[in-house]
Amino acid sequence: MIYLDHAATTPVRPEVFDAMRPYFLERFGNPSSLHSYGLDARVGVERARQQIASAIGADPQEIIFTSGGTESDNLALRGVLQRGGKKDHIITSAIEHPAVLETCKFIERLGHEVTYLSVDREGRINPAEVEDAIQENTRLISIMHANNEIGSIQPIAEVGAIAAAHGIYMHTDAVQSVGKIPVNVKKLNVQMLSISSHKIYGPKGVGCLYVQKGTKLTPLVFGGGHERGLRSGTENVSGIVGFGEAMRLAIEDFTDNARIQKLRDALIDAVLREIPSTQLNGGRVHRLPNNANFSFSYIEGESLLLRLNAKGIAGSTGSACSSKKLEPSHVLLAIGLSPVDAHGSLRLTLGRETTNADVRYVLEVLPGIVNELRQMSPLSACTDDAYGKPD
Amino acid sequence: MIYLDHAATTPVRPEVFDAMRPYFLERFGNPSSLHSYGLDARVGVERARQQIASAIGADPQEIIFTSGGTESDNLALRGVLQRGGKKDHIITSAIEHPAVLETCKFIERLGHEVTYLSVDREGRINPAEVEDAIQENTRLISIMHANNEIGSIQPIAEVGAIAAAHGIYMHTDAVQSVGKIPVNVKKLNVQMLSISSHKIYGPKGVGCLYVQKGTKLTPLVFGGGHERGLRSGTENVSGIVGFGEAMRLAIEDFTDNARIQKLRDALIDAVLREIPSTQLNGGRVHRLPNNANFSFSYIEGESLLLRLNAKGIAGSTGSACSSKKLEPSHVLLAIGLSPVDAHGSLRLTLGRETTNADVRYVLEVLPGIVNELRQMSPLSACTDDAYGKPD
Repeated sequence: MIYLDHAATTPVRPEVFDAMRPYFLERFGNPSSLHSYGLDARVGVERARQQIASAIGADPQEIIFTSGGTESDNLALRGVLQRGGKKDHIITSAIEHPAVLETCKFIERLGHEVTYLSVDREGRINPAEVEDAIQENTRLISIMHANNEIGSIQPIAEVGAIAAAHGIYMHTDAVQSVGKIPVNVKKLNVQMLSISSHKIYGPKGVGCLYVQKGTKLTPLVFGGGHERGLRSGTENVSGIVGFGEAMRLAIEDFTDNARIQKLRDALIDAVLREIPSTQLNGGRVHRLPNNANFSFSYIEGESLLLRLNAKGIAGSTGSACSSKKLEPSHVLLAIGLSPVDAHGSLRLTLGRETTNADVRYVLEVLPGIVNELRQMSPLSACTDDAYGKPD
Repeated sequence: MIYLDHAATTPVRPEVFDAMRPYFLERFGNPSSLHSYGLDARVGVERARQQIASAIGADPQEIIFTSGGTESDNLALRGVLQRGGKKDHIITSAIEHPAVLETCKFIERLGHEVTYLSVDREGRINPAEVEDAIQENTRLISIMHANNEIGSIQPIAEVGAIAAAHGIYMHTDAVQSVGKIPVNVKKLNVQMLSISSHKIYGPKGVGCLYVQKGTKLTPLVFGGGHERGLRSGTENVSGIVGFGEAMRLAIEDFTDNARIQKLRDALIDAVLREIPSTQLNGGRVHRLPNNANFSFSYIEGESLLLRLNAKGIAGSTGSACSSKKLEPSHVLLAIGLSPVDAHGSLRLTLGRETTNADVRYVLEVLPGIVNELRQMSPLSACTDDAYGKPD
């Protein structure tokens, strides 16, 4: 099986697993306990905090461990917006992850205002529009560093500078970018930054929010006062240890991204060359090195996925024409695709185990499947009429 | 090293670790992915959901996975109380875990009302007082099933019946009781119940909230709509699988609690007999089978812990006279201890690896340490004057 869905999740690296292992079985203490087991666990957590902080140019005390990227995003947004009873304003983009967009919807229901900036054909916001959107009651700007579907990289440093000039907090969801492009909180000029462990070959169920010293946040989860009072609950020690080790390895192996990018470029070139009526979604310049996202006209992404899976290739579709959600990808619509084209999309995201042979195999198999699907049924199961309205 | 701090956390059982292992390395998919890796992960999550549901008399779809007991408590309370803009009322007890108490404080800051019921000398509430506390705007009653410090077991079924008679939601924090005493959501008559994996020999960083069908909750964490929309974020698959297996084993080995209780009783009897000016905190009847909590007059719990640790015994203190929190245990104060006695407390919580020899060793070592500490310094470092005010 060839796994090309690294934007969804990654396998835990064996070195990461080995680092975690003793924290399940022997060093199993609660870091708050005043005995050797507790101390051992505390040492593991603090080492990880150091590993993560040093990877992104932060101080260890600025790292708040959470259960993952989604919680980190929620903490960043609601941590700023649930303070005070007045009507506040937040600026975000139309192509954010649901962790940000759905939180924004909830924040609107609480009576706050949200501006959703549009993006260009390549999936990038215009910093000038951020500046224009700033109001007197703007408390937070939250723009993702790189998009999870099309891999577009946003001009965060520029937006961060605008936010700083206006004294507004800046948050970025760096879940997809960390480990793939340089991420430095100082250079990005952000007060908050979300990271997820399972996107960088660490375990699921753990992540962090970088919170710059002095940033005032209300916690999302209250209790024993862990993580400087910002995130209560017994620390996920083994998960945190694995996250730290995964981050250390991501930095150590950073140059592998050049190899991945070369492979990915070869894949894009060949697909566009060999499969007619195909387009690349997103631009080629400001794009994560491992992301390819295609739209194949006249076919339905889900059928494509299932056939690829049957041939031993695990990919993803930007479209979510599933039993759960019938609407097409909000990202693909935002960059100007028609609902029909948005439904014929395929995301292939490469990783550290991806080889030349893997890409060759995809190129052997994919054109035939696309051709077969186009011949069989020009968009039958998933026509526009069948879509539900987004809720 | 003899570990007698099972109320703080437990080691992961080897069988649990073995069950989790493939979900890090091979079955690493994202359960939302439409390929074989995704399906494999989904199967693991749903098996765990079934294991947990069947252990507590629930339906699988009533299990909402979270990052742990603290988040579950937060979701239960804020899930009910953040709906609507009106002034609501919640009834809880004075000896709840900080996950409930601190959330209540936040809820009060939002403008809601909270009644904190007092407890008797044994650490139990009086159901009649629950009934008396009910107001027209009471939306939720949250009483823990068993206390984490003194192991007192509350009359949840009775309180649940009162809540039901008034059409009020009932939540219980069963983090300490699950696996030690029978926990059945139907018999307890509750709409919500919190469980933590790492208290039952499962991994840290995972837990669940039982939510009875039809219970209306607002999520705490918004995003991709996982867990029936109540808890977004990529599932902690390996953690959930381990949690499920730990729960299955807890039920399978339930009878071991009788052995543990016998050992615990022997420990209590011997300590009270052999160490003068000592009392058992909490009653002997309605008490978790593995919990012992003593107050030794004239000594300071933290010094006791450190000496026990030096002798190879890992225990805990109900007092938190640490650098972080100078106030004595709110639980021990609530059952009527003086601040001084509350500071001289020691909690020993037994577990499945605890042997007769372990208890014998504690009884060899403990009286001498208590005696030595009493001779050295009758409460010097931690006098009443040194305490900060609770915040």
